[in-house]
Amino acid sequence: MSEINDICRGRKPVLDLLTKTPSRCSKLLIANNVRPPFLDEVVDAAKNAKVTFQIVAPEALDKISGGEKHQGVICRLTQVKQIELEEFLRDINDNSPALVVVLDHLEDPHNLGAVIRSAEAGGACGVVYAKRRSAIPNDTVIKTSAGASLRLPLIQAVNITRAIETLKKFNFWIVGLDEKSDSSIWDENLPDRTALVIGAEGSGISRLVKENCDMIKKIPIFKDGAGSLNASVAAALGIFEWTKIYNGRS
Amino acid sequence: MSEINDICRGRKPVLDLLTKTPSRCSKLLIANNVRPPFLDEVVDAAKNAKVTFQIVAPEALDKISGGEKHQGVICRLTQVKQIELEEFLRDINDNSPALVVVLDHLEDPHNLGAVIRSAEAGGACGVVYAKRRSAIPNDTVIKTSAGASLRLPLIQAVNITRAIETLKKFNFWIVGLDEKSDSSIWDENLPDRTALVIGAEGSGISRLVKENCDMIKKIPIFKDGAGSLNASVAAALGIFEWTKIYNGRS
Repeated sequence: MSEINDICRGRKPVLDLLTKTPSRCSKLLIANNVRPPFLDEVVDAAKNAKVTFQIVAPEALDKISGGEKHQGVICRLTQVKQIELEEFLRDINDNSPALVVVLDHLEDPHNLGAVIRSAEAGGACGVVYAKRRSAIPNDTVIKTSAGASLRLPLIQAVNITRAIETLKKFNFWIVGLDEKSDSSIWDENLPDRTALVIGAEGSGISRLVKENCDMIKKIPIFKDGAGSLNASVAAALGIFEWTKIYNGRS
Repeated sequence: MSEINDICRGRKPVLDLLTKTPSRCSKLLIANNVRPPFLDEVVDAAKNAKVTFQIVAPEALDKISGGEKHQGVICRLTQVKQIELEEFLRDINDNSPALVVVLDHLEDPHNLGAVIRSAEAGGACGVVYAKRRSAIPNDTVIKTSAGASLRLPLIQAVNITRAIETLKKFNFWIVGLDEKSDSSIWDENLPDRTALVIGAEGSGISRLVKENCDMIKKIPIFKDGAGSLNASVAAALGIFEWTKIYNGRS
């Protein structure tokens, strides 16, 4: 857990946390210059969530926050037990349709947050991300994921290639997204058990990971020179292409 | 044009501008502390683009940039003639499939940039945005749109409801995206001439605009409590749902 920020700061993120995932809050710190009506709102939320709170000097929050804006409220998060991929997959292994999103070293925490938000909304079981050289689910990610990173299982993998091997053992088809592929994501239905692999911004999926994909698909771009898709947008299009088939409902 | 920033700053945005849309550059300013190899790269790009450049003190760039990071390079942009919606639609009015994206007061320039990027990649003809109380295509937007905001026609509308009336006159169907709709975007094909209306972050499409839509569609979210989609992700899903039918190709 040492790499993951264990705080959540800012008015909306903290309120979301207290109301939606109270089990993740261990303690709430409120600056003594926070005034009603927000003060009452956040205190009520903490009471309802049975989270203890403390009024402190704003400088104490500045110090904890390390220079980032906190708007007078910081929640300390409970430790999350890291889930092993095998253990996670064993829990969902009933051979029914399932989607797992695998991030091959996404670098921008905003993109990570955006992907997690879309993954949750699209009904993915979880998101696998690399332990090193990649964005980790810190509190920027909580914010940009609109809280989804606190709810959706996030599985840290030491090695993405090995994670892919494990996913294959659990009957997942490995589908990599790459704009240079000849095959469109719209050509045929995605497999019912799909592990959707998203590459890094700019460089895309690494060669070794690509070699281990069962298929590589592109999101067709309208015309040459029309730029490229943002990694989190490409991920969302892949996720909802699966969702549409296996989870679609009006 | 007075509301639109007429500069582009930062190494990647400026290089993109010089190589991809040189006609938008009127002059390049380079700080005298910029060193090779980037210095040679940007000077070569300016020469190729036939854009005049000038070496200036870094402080001159700081002043022009108004506190924003510029990494030693700023391009002054040529003025863009504002296109009127009617004029724009007359140019594309051949009754063939067409997509126009209409933004009902998107507030976040990052979302605006992301939507413009997806709109270009998905083959939309243009993006209509409100003149007031909304994000405008400034240089944050150039950056987050990966340059698409310099290439795709962006039409400023004084009044979104009136813009919708105009679109109807040119045989567009007005499709609003709203997560609270009962009708899924996957239930039936989007019309061949679609004006896709995206609402503001949080508040969504305004009541008056909604009343003027021909249909309101939702992107189905997997389950209750799974949060919501980011406005730019919802827009991308709508755009590519249209693209898939009318522009899809492997």
